[in-house]
Amino acid sequence: MTDRSAAVAELTAALPEGVVATRPEALEKYRFDWAKDPEAGMPCAAVRAETAEHVQVAVGWAASHGIPVVPRGAGSGLSGGASAVEGGLVVSLERMTAIEIDPAARCAVVEPGAFNADVKKAAGEHGLWYPPDPSSFEICSIGGNIATNAGGLCCVKYGVTTDYVLGLDVVLADGRLVTLGGKRIKDVAGLSLLKLFVGSEGTLGIVTRATLRLVPAQLAPSTLVATFDTVRGAADAVVAMGRVVRASMVELMDRPTVNQVEDFAPMGLDRDRALLLVQSDAPEGAREQEMAVIEKSCVEAGSVDVFVTHDPAEGESFVRARRLAFPAAEAAGSLLLEDVGVPVPQLPDLVARVEQIGVERAVDIVCVAHAGDGNTHPIVMYDAADADSTRRARAAFEDILTAAIALGGTITGEHGVGRLKRDALPAMLGPHVMELNQRIKTALDPDGLLNPGAVLPVIPAGQR
Amino acid sequence: MTDRSAAVAELTAALPEGVVATRPEALEKYRFDWAKDPEAGMPCAAVRAETAEHVQVAVGWAASHGIPVVPRGAGSGLSGGASAVEGGLVVSLERMTAIEIDPAARCAVVEPGAFNADVKKAAGEHGLWYPPDPSSFEICSIGGNIATNAGGLCCVKYGVTTDYVLGLDVVLADGRLVTLGGKRIKDVAGLSLLKLFVGSEGTLGIVTRATLRLVPAQLAPSTLVATFDTVRGAADAVVAMGRVVRASMVELMDRPTVNQVEDFAPMGLDRDRALLLVQSDAPEGAREQEMAVIEKSCVEAGSVDVFVTHDPAEGESFVRARRLAFPAAEAAGSLLLEDVGVPVPQLPDLVARVEQIGVERAVDIVCVAHAGDGNTHPIVMYDAADADSTRRARAAFEDILTAAIALGGTITGEHGVGRLKRDALPAMLGPHVMELNQRIKTALDPDGLLNPGAVLPVIPAGQR
Repeated sequence: MTDRSAAVAELTAALPEGVVATRPEALEKYRFDWAKDPEAGMPCAAVRAETAEHVQVAVGWAASHGIPVVPRGAGSGLSGGASAVEGGLVVSLERMTAIEIDPAARCAVVEPGAFNADVKKAAGEHGLWYPPDPSSFEICSIGGNIATNAGGLCCVKYGVTTDYVLGLDVVLADGRLVTLGGKRIKDVAGLSLLKLFVGSEGTLGIVTRATLRLVPAQLAPSTLVATFDTVRGAADAVVAMGRVVRASMVELMDRPTVNQVEDFAPMGLDRDRALLLVQSDAPEGAREQEMAVIEKSCVEAGSVDVFVTHDPAEGESFVRARRLAFPAAEAAGSLLLEDVGVPVPQLPDLVARVEQIGVERAVDIVCVAHAGDGNTHPIVMYDAADADSTRRARAAFEDILTAAIALGGTITGEHGVGRLKRDALPAMLGPHVMELNQRIKTALDPDGLLNPGAVLPVIPAGQR
Repeated sequence: MTDRSAAVAELTAALPEGVVATRPEALEKYRFDWAKDPEAGMPCAAVRAETAEHVQVAVGWAASHGIPVVPRGAGSGLSGGASAVEGGLVVSLERMTAIEIDPAARCAVVEPGAFNADVKKAAGEHGLWYPPDPSSFEICSIGGNIATNAGGLCCVKYGVTTDYVLGLDVVLADGRLVTLGGKRIKDVAGLSLLKLFVGSEGTLGIVTRATLRLVPAQLAPSTLVATFDTVRGAADAVVAMGRVVRASMVELMDRPTVNQVEDFAPMGLDRDRALLLVQSDAPEGAREQEMAVIEKSCVEAGSVDVFVTHDPAEGESFVRARRLAFPAAEAAGSLLLEDVGVPVPQLPDLVARVEQIGVERAVDIVCVAHAGDGNTHPIVMYDAADADSTRRARAAFEDILTAAIALGGTITGEHGVGRLKRDALPAMLGPHVMELNQRIKTALDPDGLLNPGAVLPVIPAGQR
């Protein structure tokens, strides 16, 4: 019996039956997230925590043995933030799914494994709404949303996950549990640790409970669909309308995306053009005015065809098509998914540059975007069986990151750095900000055991 | 010539003429903020920085001599966060007031000394709006707003300062300048350092430039004024309406506040009752519905009298009366200003407990509140010439902090911990979260020279 397997036996004994998985076939499902990082290791064990105390036991055990810990929600992450580390421990939060709504405080108190959609549903039963809505909202967990500070389609008007996190219970690197914030709306007592943990991708601690702010239910939206001969035209329309109104959704699908989605689930979209999907949830009275501004922006930017519907179900069918962009691309072949963002006025330049990169590298790139936020998801398609295609796709992926940085943008708007973009982070942040990141990491996780290799490079102990 | 005065001479020589102040009469104005902390020291010099480089020179100089640095904006802080440290350096940002609006990106790029009101005005010229609005918005600086994560009257609907900070230039403890974030709306590349610096009260770095998010101009609001026999009744109305609508302002003045304001600037408010001031900026159509919900909530909670006006100027006169609460209290005598907050459903209990504390300690407490956020400003009045009155006021101040913590609240919702509430922070956060705060502080300011004694206790070098 090796030291590690003795240690694992100790962990198994310390937790209730069925909590610790150790058989290779059981561990296989804890190795990868949706990024399918080929470098993901095989963990020594997975703890399917049922309580915060289980997480504390697991992390405390890992700390005492110097074993790395990768926390994991629903495994729908797109940047390898939940890729297992060889020989490390996976702490899965999938069993911690409790949701409690406090309608008077307009809060949800949620365990990290709860799905985003279930939080929305529970809030909806009280006439309340939890806005953040990643495209994957039906299969992604709140814990993962917090880990990546997830965005989505409505954040152009309603903000991102961090804007809704009022409180967190976090298990620290040494196994202690701390509570940050709570049901109070405003709180400036002490440093903003709460906001620091949001978006930290499991590198600073493991969230075991979150208090989320809710708002009154959204009004059923009106929907405008406009088609454009060029992506640049659609992007121009986005910039123009953003100066005047706060649409509740501003999504862009380029022509190749429209075609992929039509191939995947035909609904009669115009295959010859880029599509802009805009919604307004303004109250009656203001609604017509807002829709008029949106329509005018599209027409003046060269829209070929504009369709407006006030029927929520009809509008939702277009939103569903938009949400199919990623599954449709997945069905079409191997892909590298980007998440680059730029200031909104630079959106036309970014989408034009992405098209150009596709030509230069001779790869197909389909591009969808949360256009109102300047956050785009170019998807580089390739043939995994063809080494040259793979090489060209990777080169295009790097080119897009470089282009975003050059336009004053970010390498990730909402998916997180994870492991896939770790090596691109220094080029974006520069050495001084990288060093600040590392100092914070070391301050909160001195032994570097929490999700090592995610976001930041692993620094050998002697050099921290 | 002492070592310190030789060092000051070196600093004076390193910066342009007129930037460094050293004469005691010139330094007097840099000793205090509005908290008038009697323990404020006399600085050795004040740097009136005109550029980020001046700040870098000043901080670099301080670091090389081991001299503490207190950054300072407009000096309107209410918790002693800008109290000078004896023999330390004050870095004043009052001369850095540039404001640049980028209407396409819907951003303001602002130097820290710019007044909040001037940012609003500059944005307004482009049909845009910077929402955060501390009561002191006409005389407080953006740098100070960022340092304390300031709130205000509109944050019940529009959020607080951190929700609008997209980018910061920060001079670090060693004099390096880093840029965090930028004009991009969504960005999750690396740890959320940007959010960590917001609200850090100058203890982690000095902000020299901020990129602020702007939104389309607010519609002129409708205003409802309701009077109540009891503060609890008014607070009950707040809880009830908050479950259904997002009013754009929900302010509460208790009866003693109404009387103080009437004494200070008579406008015919009902001196016998507590006053609730609610605004709706919902678009036409939705406006009537929202106002109806607000009115119904007030009536059902026992409102004696409800007055509604759709005239923005008339509504603003009530808002102005509310903003006078603090100046009116100042004119009435010596005071201790609280900033405690609780979850909204606990607001009635908090205001009732504050009244009770006034009776128990035999002190007058007037109470205004950003009621929709559960954030209250009880003001403890006392006679500074009377030692017993002063002692009772301090005891009441402590009692209110304790009451807020007991109700799941915070010792500060928007003013910051500063030096006045530093000793109350451990009771609220507990030893583990205090230790996390200290770890972050030490990671970013290892020598403890940035605003020492604000927020956190000074830790001797050997114990860090």
